[in-house]
Amino acid sequence: LRKFDSFLEGHPTPKFEYNEAATGSLGQGLSVGVGMAINAKHDNLDYKTYVMMGDGEIAEGSVWEGAELASHYKLNNLIGIVDCNRLGQSGESIENHNVEKYAKKFEAFGWNAYIIDGHNVEDIFTTLEKITSGANNKNPNVIIAKTYKGYGLENIENKNGFHGKPFKKEELEKVIDQLKTRFKDAAEYQKERSIPELPSPTKCEIDNTKQIIKLNLEDDKNSSLFDNDKKIATRKSFGYALASLGKQSTQIFALDGDVKNSTYTEIFEKENPKNFIQCFIAEQAMISVTTGLELRNKIPFAATFGAFFTRAHDQIRMAGIGKNALRLCGSHCGVSIGEDGPSQMALEDIAMMRCIPNSIVLYPSDGVSAYKLTEIMANYSDGISYLRTSRPETPIIYNKNEEFKIGGCKVLKESESDKVCIIGAGVTLYESLKAHEELKKQNINVSVIDLYSVKPLDVETIKKVALKSGNKIITVEDHYLQGGIGEAVSSTLINTEIKIEKLAVTDISCSGKSEELLSAAKIDAKHIIKKVLEII
Amino acid sequence: LRKFDSFLEGHPTPKFEYNEAATGSLGQGLSVGVGMAINAKHDNLDYKTYVMMGDGEIAEGSVWEGAELASHYKLNNLIGIVDCNRLGQSGESIENHNVEKYAKKFEAFGWNAYIIDGHNVEDIFTTLEKITSGANNKNPNVIIAKTYKGYGLENIENKNGFHGKPFKKEELEKVIDQLKTRFKDAAEYQKERSIPELPSPTKCEIDNTKQIIKLNLEDDKNSSLFDNDKKIATRKSFGYALASLGKQSTQIFALDGDVKNSTYTEIFEKENPKNFIQCFIAEQAMISVTTGLELRNKIPFAATFGAFFTRAHDQIRMAGIGKNALRLCGSHCGVSIGEDGPSQMALEDIAMMRCIPNSIVLYPSDGVSAYKLTEIMANYSDGISYLRTSRPETPIIYNKNEEFKIGGCKVLKESESDKVCIIGAGVTLYESLKAHEELKKQNINVSVIDLYSVKPLDVETIKKVALKSGNKIITVEDHYLQGGIGEAVSSTLINTEIKIEKLAVTDISCSGKSEELLSAAKIDAKHIIKKVLEII
Repeated sequence: LRKFDSFLEGHPTPKFEYNEAATGSLGQGLSVGVGMAINAKHDNLDYKTYVMMGDGEIAEGSVWEGAELASHYKLNNLIGIVDCNRLGQSGESIENHNVEKYAKKFEAFGWNAYIIDGHNVEDIFTTLEKITSGANNKNPNVIIAKTYKGYGLENIENKNGFHGKPFKKEELEKVIDQLKTRFKDAAEYQKERSIPELPSPTKCEIDNTKQIIKLNLEDDKNSSLFDNDKKIATRKSFGYALASLGKQSTQIFALDGDVKNSTYTEIFEKENPKNFIQCFIAEQAMISVTTGLELRNKIPFAATFGAFFTRAHDQIRMAGIGKNALRLCGSHCGVSIGEDGPSQMALEDIAMMRCIPNSIVLYPSDGVSAYKLTEIMANYSDGISYLRTSRPETPIIYNKNEEFKIGGCKVLKESESDKVCIIGAGVTLYESLKAHEELKKQNINVSVIDLYSVKPLDVETIKKVALKSGNKIITVEDHYLQGGIGEAVSSTLINTEIKIEKLAVTDISCSGKSEELLSAAKIDAKHIIKKVLEII
Repeated sequence: LRKFDSFLEGHPTPKFEYNEAATGSLGQGLSVGVGMAINAKHDNLDYKTYVMMGDGEIAEGSVWEGAELASHYKLNNLIGIVDCNRLGQSGESIENHNVEKYAKKFEAFGWNAYIIDGHNVEDIFTTLEKITSGANNKNPNVIIAKTYKGYGLENIENKNGFHGKPFKKEELEKVIDQLKTRFKDAAEYQKERSIPELPSPTKCEIDNTKQIIKLNLEDDKNSSLFDNDKKIATRKSFGYALASLGKQSTQIFALDGDVKNSTYTEIFEKENPKNFIQCFIAEQAMISVTTGLELRNKIPFAATFGAFFTRAHDQIRMAGIGKNALRLCGSHCGVSIGEDGPSQMALEDIAMMRCIPNSIVLYPSDGVSAYKLTEIMANYSDGISYLRTSRPETPIIYNKNEEFKIGGCKVLKESESDKVCIIGAGVTLYESLKAHEELKKQNINVSVIDLYSVKPLDVETIKKVALKSGNKIITVEDHYLQGGIGEAVSSTLINTEIKIEKLAVTDISCSGKSEELLSAAKIDAKHIIKKVLEII
């Protein structure tokens, strides 16, 4: 236990064969269970999902997000068990041993609650039988099991100060003896009272097929929206691609947190209503439900404003540790969202998502790339994939048969006499292209790269183009300087001769027009031109 | 409204004079109010705190974290008002117009709930009077106000599709006329029924003194723990410093999420119990309560495992926008925590905290620096300050009168023939020092810097030392590569001749001994030496 190379870690991770989801950060299990239970309902499978919780743990608000979703979706196939042992890590839990209060909370959230003596084996069996035999079978069920930490151990039971602490060697024999008695009791008890054995767990009949899901934008019924003279927001293009993916595979799901008309998952909902899950304004639960679905072999996309993924950062972090292939789309990135103001602007999402091991971070600029990158995400199963979409409409710049790849970039402007290479993505790509045009009029050539894959980076192409552009790069991003595109590129090219100037957001933004805010943040064409003239 | 340079933004920020806390991310207000209400109780002030919420908003779990804390601390001076208008941004809220269900939820969480017709002015007045006159005065109170979105507006009232949408110019006159009638109604109503005017809001009598709080480690009663031959974990040193700060100023508060015996805020609690707030395992509420206290001129420190600050990333982000001077201490950083495994390791906290505008990020290696940096944080009021502390005990390397500053670093090893400069912080500083000793035996000199201030960086000193160290730097950090120390340093030095190698965590860690995990992550002395030999 807890040894290097052991599958028994401090907290279960996927290294442990019977692990369902990476654990160790509290209050996430219930919503993962909600995802699994929704999956059973969706596929008409009769497995039940059990979620163990601690009483200290259910102080986490995420538990109540999961509780309300379970009730809303009438998940009578979901059984919660709260081990209510009164003691947290450092002291008493918030409601102490007041089990009635916990029951009342779950009941208010639409659950059937059963208070039992958690040390009474008959109580446990009969309550589980009552629940699984279908009494009260409209709502989710929870068992509030009153227990004592260290039950049956002399001078330890119900006492503070033993959380996660191993016993001393000299205490060990006595403790093991006391535990042995308890275990014999339970087994004999079951025999004596002829309590039937619970059915042994059966493997979920889930569809394990890994199919490659292909889209064809030229044949898409919305293809004309992607014509070369059109404008479309990348967030909307994501919605169309997602809807088309749903037509290709019943494994595709979309999850929303009451912003489907902003992220455009509503396009998916309209065409694939059965695979659309409304999680209301509960982003933590939304991510954990996504994890639960992924663990039952679905291909779930969760979308909200990029800024609001910070609300579920811990859930995303844990899914990273669990190696779950969540597909996340964060819309409304950067100051370019305009009027709504700083609370709605994702300016740290690239930094957050780059930190997740095995993650990929994609950032489309036009409708075609957004569509194709969404298709790529559906087929990426090695970890979390993040698509960063923008609010403003942007012109289509790619042909419908253009190909994109994880770790790629596009060189949009290149000449034999480039003085600087400008790297943009999303809205700043258009500012870079504007700067290119303006500078051309002054007989100054600059190359322009569309960095649609922020992680991984296409280092070789960037290097090659920079070498032909006076060994100078300017990165321009609608994101904070820290952990963003400029730092990612600098970090990779630090040991070359290439010099890099970074234009990025460095202060709190405000409400205003998109152009005003891009200019105030010094990431628009005017400031790119200024920087080019400074360094050539 | 929503115009550049206007104080009326899309969502209120501190630019708006009457703003209490930065808003726009839902479900945070209640816990900010909890902090303000706790402050009133603490200081025996008779102001009341009112928090407006939407029905869609209270799907956020953070609301229920705040609700349980309010009840636990018997905050009868806190009044919640839920505008229950049935409609969210994109559709119906989770409980629709079922106001009884909302009331039942709050009651289960220990509140008095009053359901009213939110359009009936008499109902509003009499309920507020009932609450403020002290009936039911043991518990917090909430008004569930049933309302209709767009009330009184023809073809708009109670209909979806008008969220955040301005009216067309031709509709404007009619809409304004209809609203005018409603406003006159309310004013006349108050006059007619002789409803007494509510007392005009009085300014909170808060102590606005900005004092400089000084500690003297040489005189500290625990001074002997910081002697040169001792070992102490930086997290424990933080606890001692915090307790001593509490003795210097009654404005100092400490907030915990049931890990006080790991972060060592328990040392503070023991000596300053009245200024210690247990928030249980509810990190989101903990941060918002911290914000509430800060807005009432307290100097609050919140501490938990660094990993669990990801749970409150959105709350920290919003406090950044609100320019609130939260003091945050994240313990158990990096793989060096050992046995507990990856879920408990903060490996993205530097990236997260660097992204907050006006933040400072401090990372002590020994007990003295941890103590002094905690003192510095108490006096930093321009934004969020973050202290990253480590689990393992580390030797004292500084004298008790050593001075530290925001944006500083310490050059610990330097000679006339250094081949490389090694930059470490926290546990990796000791690995760097070990590498230094080993290499010395092979007649290879390397300089060593303790980068205790990660943001801002002491660029000048780093440059100066690197120039004298063969223009080569190796950064070593117990953090993911992305957004960490190596990227911060690379980003700053990209336009110099200095070459930088980055040793950082690049994959998911596991349980094991601290040394095993440092070695597996290739950030221990052995791997530093290997890298030095590679590049000199």
